[in-house]
Amino acid sequence: MHIGFIGLGNMGAPMARNLLKAGYALSVFDLNDAAVRELVQAGALPAESPGAIARGNADVIITMLPAAPHVRSVYLGDDGLIQNVRPDVLLIDSSTIDPHSARDVAAVAAQHGNPMLDAPVSGGTGGAAAGTLTFMVGGSTADFARARPILEAMGKNIIHCGDSGNGQVAKVANNMLLGISMIGVAEAMALGVALGMDAKTLAGVINTSSGRCWSSDTYNPFPGVLENVPASRGYSGGFGTDLMLKDLGLATEAAKQARQPVILGALAQQLYQAFSAQGHGGLDFSAIINQYRKDSTHE
Amino acid sequence: MHIGFIGLGNMGAPMARNLLKAGYALSVFDLNDAAVRELVQAGALPAESPGAIARGNADVIITMLPAAPHVRSVYLGDDGLIQNVRPDVLLIDSSTIDPHSARDVAAVAAQHGNPMLDAPVSGGTGGAAAGTLTFMVGGSTADFARARPILEAMGKNIIHCGDSGNGQVAKVANNMLLGISMIGVAEAMALGVALGMDAKTLAGVINTSSGRCWSSDTYNPFPGVLENVPASRGYSGGFGTDLMLKDLGLATEAAKQARQPVILGALAQQLYQAFSAQGHGGLDFSAIINQYRKDSTHE
Amino acid sequence: MHIGFIGLGNMGAPMARNLLKAGYALSVFDLNDAAVRELVQAGALPAESPGAIARGNADVIITMLPAAPHVRSVYLGDDGLIQNVRPDVLLIDSSTIDPHSARDVAAVAAQHGNPMLDAPVSGGTGGAAAGTLTFMVGGSTADFARARPILEAMGKNIIHCGDSGNGQVAKVANNMLLGISMIGVAEAMALGVALGMDAKTLAGVINTSSGRCWSSDTYNPFPGVLENVPASRGYSGGFGTDLMLKDLGLATEAAKQARQPVILGALAQQLYQAFSAQGHGGLDFSAIINQYRKDSTHE
Amino acid sequence: MHIGFIGLGNMGAPMARNLLKAGYALSVFDLNDAAVRELVQAGALPAESPGAIARGNADVIITMLPAAPHVRSVYLGDDGLIQNVRPDVLLIDSSTIDPHSARDVAAVAAQHGNPMLDAPVSGGTGGAAAGTLTFMVGGSTADFARARPILEAMGKNIIHCGDSGNGQVAKVANNMLLGISMIGVAEAMALGVALGMDAKTLAGVINTSSGRCWSSDTYNPFPGVLENVPASRGYSGGFGTDLMLKDLGLATEAAKQARQPVILGALAQQLYQAFSAQGHGGLDFSAIINQYRKDSTHE
Repeated sequence: MHIGFIGLGNMGAPMARNLLKAGYALSVFDLNDAAVRELVQAGALPAESPGAIARGNADVIITMLPAAPHVRSVYLGDDGLIQNVRPDVLLIDSSTIDPHSARDVAAVAAQHGNPMLDAPVSGGTGGAAAGTLTFMVGGSTADFARARPILEAMGKNIIHCGDSGNGQVAKVANNMLLGISMIGVAEAMALGVALGMDAKTLAGVINTSSGRCWSSDTYNPFPGVLENVPASRGYSGGFGTDLMLKDLGLATEAAKQARQPVILGALAQQLYQAFSAQGHGGLDFSAIINQYRKDSTHE
Repeated sequence: MHIGFIGLGNMGAPMARNLLKAGYALSVFDLNDAAVRELVQAGALPAESPGAIARGNADVIITMLPAAPHVRSVYLGDDGLIQNVRPDVLLIDSSTIDPHSARDVAAVAAQHGNPMLDAPVSGGTGGAAAGTLTFMVGGSTADFARARPILEAMGKNIIHCGDSGNGQVAKVANNMLLGISMIGVAEAMALGVALGMDAKTLAGVINTSSGRCWSSDTYNPFPGVLENVPASRGYSGGFGTDLMLKDLGLATEAAKQARQPVILGALAQQLYQAFSAQGHGGLDFSAIINQYRKDSTHE
Repeated sequence: MHIGFIGLGNMGAPMARNLLKAGYALSVFDLNDAAVRELVQAGALPAESPGAIARGNADVIITMLPAAPHVRSVYLGDDGLIQNVRPDVLLIDSSTIDPHSARDVAAVAAQHGNPMLDAPVSGGTGGAAAGTLTFMVGGSTADFARARPILEAMGKNIIHCGDSGNGQVAKVANNMLLGISMIGVAEAMALGVALGMDAKTLAGVINTSSGRCWSSDTYNPFPGVLENVPASRGYSGGFGTDLMLKDLGLATEAAKQARQPVILGALAQQLYQAFSAQGHGGLDFSAIINQYRKDSTHE
Repeated sequence: MHIGFIGLGNMGAPMARNLLKAGYALSVFDLNDAAVRELVQAGALPAESPGAIARGNADVIITMLPAAPHVRSVYLGDDGLIQNVRPDVLLIDSSTIDPHSARDVAAVAAQHGNPMLDAPVSGGTGGAAAGTLTFMVGGSTADFARARPILEAMGKNIIHCGDSGNGQVAKVANNMLLGISMIGVAEAMALGVALGMDAKTLAGVINTSSGRCWSSDTYNPFPGVLENVPASRGYSGGFGTDLMLKDLGLATEAAKQARQPVILGALAQQLYQAFSAQGHGGLDFSAIINQYRKDSTHE
């Protein structure tokens, strides 16, 4: 099977490599020539444009792009995918964008006879390299079944979230909750320690009680509670505050369009925005706990 | 061993019954005579006042009272425990109160030669009846070891949280996080459904992703996602909104005294307060999701 | 002098009438034929498209449109203003849109040799009919001077806010503050009354103290405090909650693009959103006080 | 007429001096002997305790104390006012405390035949020295009339707020609104400037529009907009952040007791708390704008 792959950034490049490793023939495109050259050295064929990928003999085309305007341009633009692709080629967009745009593009694809899935990921650059990403997939059951083996070459948790756009919905809903939970854990840990408790002991209580959550038991923001998390290495690596900000921006924008209130979600967005405006947008998002710790010096 | 027990309300009465079942001799006091009579029928001895309990031959005295003023009165009042108890009797307060008051009372007890533990519980009236409460215990390691077998007659998860007051600290920190997480789950579920997703599918994604938390995987607020939770029986039973409000009030008050910001914690308190002011204080706290669902009629 | 006017909605129609009253020759366009006919009966000339207005002999063209996409289309579209207008015709956009879009369109206009002002208004349909609007104007000092007499035919307070886009900036900043202040007054009034104070007396204190603001002394949300405000006529008329929501949406979106936190602004947006989602988007925005009054039944 | 005065701190001492200047005979008490000596040098008589003041020949007794526990002690304690004062002596408490405590003490005073007014002030130490304070007074109309000439020796704006406790209600409601408005102005000014507007121009627009408020037109937090405000002298002097925090603490506590939500009020409290926790509690509360300005270095 031949796969076209567009978008070879921090996430896309290792994903494409895993497809090569799994034995797929691969044509790749990126505006960055160096990124293309690296994949070509690994065995991929270069293409000159999204349109060239579409005019090639790919059975499936995967895109991994920064934001909705790029997705619209690559799919709907003059030398774009949809004007050039033959019917039945399966289109998979793994970019994280708003559900509304995802559904718009999928509807145009459907009119041209092309099945399309939205399949945003979680797991970060580490998961992309290790092939352990989670894919949240929106589209028909048949198209999901067709995509599954390909996605399994790049991830280990492939979830069908329902119809078109629902992959994006699941991602923004989950990540909004994550952004809230992390601040909740930060406040609870900082409060408990300010009131005299040991951080590890407090985390132990929470992790066996009703406050238990991924932000506490797997990614605790208090330094020293867990090993091998950003909090224990100066908040480097991990999931950057500015990436969390992007996802919260998508969530509150989608909520606005749906006329749906998200009170804690919007407040969480502003708190990460304030932290980023102070110059900390590159730190892992769990560093938000530093806003609550008097004695911290961004360890 | 002889135990004195003061406070036979919705929580205290079933806890005292479990001590009787475990074979302890029990003297009991409550301002409500009917509550006393019921325990006497079950085998307890009645006492006329906290002071009378203290002057008796109890080796351990347990209290379960509504709020800090009651605790201060029962321990420090004229016919109270501390003026009447002999040295070395172990005092265990299972009331949920602010850590500051807990430490004050324990310090007075220590001056009179009495070890004291703060041991607030979680698990609700169901856990009290079934003997499956969680105890969060503050006090010395030796006193904790002495109390443990007694507490195990009433609970199944007995956690030592550190020195005096830390049981209360752990409880307010955990429950503040719980109050935040529940609203976070409510917003994420309502947003996802408003954007077109199936509630059970969305919960399934969250529960295997980074939004995973007790409020989602064990106590989901969206009707129909889980069986045997308040959301699936009209938000009856469970942990009432007004009880959550009490705990958030303790958390923000403790934070104020410690000069510690708790931004989402304080906002959560206000959102439950608004819900309660609309007349829903008696519903389980997960009913807060009704503030976010246009189509809900408090099902 | 000949003026072209595009957009004859609830605001645009009375504004255009005031220009006719002031003696200006007027050509008008709207997608709604009935709206055009009414202005023609009042003395205006009809035009068939924005392009037709541009190809006419107008010295100045004014637009009053619902949102940024309409502005982009009318100015930059195929039969739009900029492709058809002769150089030096002054373009004035009185729509309320985001500053970024306003600056984009003005930059294109400048490239075609056309001066352009952004001139959003406040004062509502009442002010539009009475000719008492406030215009917040962004653009060069010379262009502002040229526009001033025309704007004075429609408003009484014409403010130069600086360069291109700053009229929009001033409006979103002012209206975000207004949205916050109104909720602040609602909370303060509801709290004072809940604690036993008379509403008029409390407003009297606030209006001579440091809480003094337009939302309290001119537009008080508590029924009965002021006459002739929406609060004293069931929150009908005035500035609808959904219009406030639109402006708060512009403010938080502009803040996001500028990476600028607006914590209370974002929370205010969510609180109006929750009120609107409950079905009250058509009430004046001061009705938000009903979220805080236990005894109110949306009087 | 002879006046007793208890509490000679930063506010009380200059208030007492103004009573001496107005020709009243004055007996004074404070735990700080140096403060007493300074007033004695200015013409007052020293007293040894609140009880001694009460047993003297004062017709009116005024108290100015830090918080509710001090008020309870001075009025209700063993050598306190109420056990020692003769009937009909008018008691005026100018401390800022919660309305509940104010009403409690006034009720005890009434049982002993003593009329009592709560009369908290605004205007700061500058207003206390200049005799230009605002007094917000709760109590009967007759008692208010009796107190008025005395209060006019210390203030220029004497407002009757209704029955007992309403002076405190008015103050907490007004100051909660002030705390919210100031953050609202800070966000609006910071947003407008981030989007390219001149601060003075923006303030000019707001001050003639619907965002107009005391925090903008009289006490603008942006440096350089107004002269003679804390923002133009490094946020020194003025009304300290920690004093605003105290008042917001009283407001949210009173709201909790009344089961009344105050969403923006509680969030404002947390934002000032976070600012104070970073070490800025001594700066004027308008310095909160530094949390929103990327380029500020707490000028």
